[in-house]
Amino acid sequence: MDTAQIFAALTIVGLFVFAISGALTALRNDMDLFGVGMIAFVTGVGGGTIRDVLLGSFPVWWIADPNAIFICLAGAAVATLAQPILTSRLNALIWADAMGLAVFTVLGAQAALAVEAPLVIAIFMGAVTATFGGIVRDVLLNEAPLILKQDIYATAALIGASAYIGLLSLGAGSALAAVLAAVLTFAIRGGAILFNIPSPKYARPRKSELE
Amino acid sequence: MDTAQIFAALTIVGLFVFAISGALTALRNDMDLFGVGMIAFVTGVGGGTIRDVLLGSFPVWWIADPNAIFICLAGAAVATLAQPILTSRLNALIWADAMGLAVFTVLGAQAALAVEAPLVIAIFMGAVTATFGGIVRDVLLNEAPLILKQDIYATAALIGASAYIGLLSLGAGSALAAVLAAVLTFAIRGGAILFNIPSPKYARPRKSELE
Amino acid sequence: MDTAQIFAALTIVGLFVFAISGALTALRNDMDLFGVGMIAFVTGVGGGTIRDVLLGSFPVWWIADPNAIFICLAGAAVATLAQPILTSRLNALIWADAMGLAVFTVLGAQAALAVEAPLVIAIFMGAVTATFGGIVRDVLLNEAPLILKQDIYATAALIGASAYIGLLSLGAGSALAAVLAAVLTFAIRGGAILFNIPSPKYARPRKSELE
Repeated sequence: MDTAQIFAALTIVGLFVFAISGALTALRNDMDLFGVGMIAFVTGVGGGTIRDVLLGSFPVWWIADPNAIFICLAGAAVATLAQPILTSRLNALIWADAMGLAVFTVLGAQAALAVEAPLVIAIFMGAVTATFGGIVRDVLLNEAPLILKQDIYATAALIGASAYIGLLSLGAGSALAAVLAAVLTFAIRGGAILFNIPSPKYARPRKSELE
Repeated sequence: MDTAQIFAALTIVGLFVFAISGALTALRNDMDLFGVGMIAFVTGVGGGTIRDVLLGSFPVWWIADPNAIFICLAGAAVATLAQPILTSRLNALIWADAMGLAVFTVLGAQAALAVEAPLVIAIFMGAVTATFGGIVRDVLLNEAPLILKQDIYATAALIGASAYIGLLSLGAGSALAAVLAAVLTFAIRGGAILFNIPSPKYARPRKSELE
Repeated sequence: MDTAQIFAALTIVGLFVFAISGALTALRNDMDLFGVGMIAFVTGVGGGTIRDVLLGSFPVWWIADPNAIFICLAGAAVATLAQPILTSRLNALIWADAMGLAVFTVLGAQAALAVEAPLVIAIFMGAVTATFGGIVRDVLLNEAPLILKQDIYATAALIGASAYIGLLSLGAGSALAAVLAAVLTFAIRGGAILFNIPSPKYARPRKSELE
């Protein structure tokens, strides 16, 4: 089993986990079956879709590979049927989501390099691929995107994508760079989960402190 | 008058009705004239626009055919001037909207087949074309998308698009399949309106029932 | 320094100002550093990005010219560090924003003409380029888009883009038409700021007046 196969397998897991997280949020918002399936799908494929549109890679990736639809619908079905169990396994979900974040970050940067985008764009597309599924989910559910507010999440993707580009620039093999960058992204996100580290904000006096 | 002409005429009616529904929602949200026109336009052309972008069919359909802009602006003008009358004719609007749903479902599936997308994608694009104008409208107005929450609406589009693909696969003529699928979509949506059928949700105990 | 160079310089100023306005809104919404940078970037490049996607001009403009990312990040940094100063200089910001509106309107119409879009589409794309960055910012922050509700803002862009197309049709030179249209857009927006003119709405009895 080579690196490409491992990443293909991890992509399926990432899609599945992102779809479950989307479906759970949709169920909490009292969506109907179509709404749950649609939010699961959008959460799973949304980041890569926005990346493909911005890069002009058409048709977008899941049209060429409609298996993504079935994986996301399977995630939606599992979330709907096993909702009570999953909610009590939230911890497991958060870790699976961290794995999805790591895999999607590397895949996003790879896709940008494949169309010869500038390096800074490749880093940006790594973060977009990993985070915009969740952002579109929150926009559709009329919630302020959590990813932009708290937790080291997008930050982990940005650092991971930068590491991937940096390692390639230093002459590392493509597979080695991908694995190291994904592990780094996962480690940063995992550290934030374990030690409950808030995301960096610029410190400034709040109104409540001034009053 | 052949089937293509009938569908072209019905597209104009569908656009017009979707634009009116968008403009009425914008007026209720206290938008200015530009806002009302923009929301009317987005509601009318939004579903087909997202479909074209995902499929990579550029430029998107209303750039090649800017009449769509004028039809939507006419809908916005009618909605603005006749708001009190229209609100009391809500029933007529709901039925016209059901017709728009039926026409856009078939047109969306046709557009996907025209670029040789897989069959499951064609079904999906039928539902996207028919429903995402309303979803984008709700997102721009900062409301949770109603379509994802209640009523047999997207469900009717999914079934209609599936029927269209199924009929084609069985060897039905393109025009016959289009008409039958549109009539089926309209009948399902109409039945849901007449008998007030809620959209399918996975039954589970609610907090209110548990307390 | 010819007109093209002046417009290139003004584009940088427009991007910078739009990014600052986006970052200030993100800071007010308690976003983290990634969120502030992302909202600043989206506000700066969002209008031109949506224009490019709709017109099918790929890759979108800032992928070919990643300097836009750095300009927007500089705007985000300035907004974060100088937030208290900027808030007291709101007046200066509003005028700089009016200049960004004027420049982006003309650039948007030019981009549409460059791919031979119909004239009405070019007018529309002028307004989209100038206003959709702010609309996407508001959608991501889960606020109802202000631009669609109040102030002569999008209206100024529509009139300016129409003037640009009109002047070109009358045989005016490209540079002259661009300058005149930008000045007109700025003047209309500036007049609305100075005299506090609300955007045009269709007058109708309000509930509160009826009660």
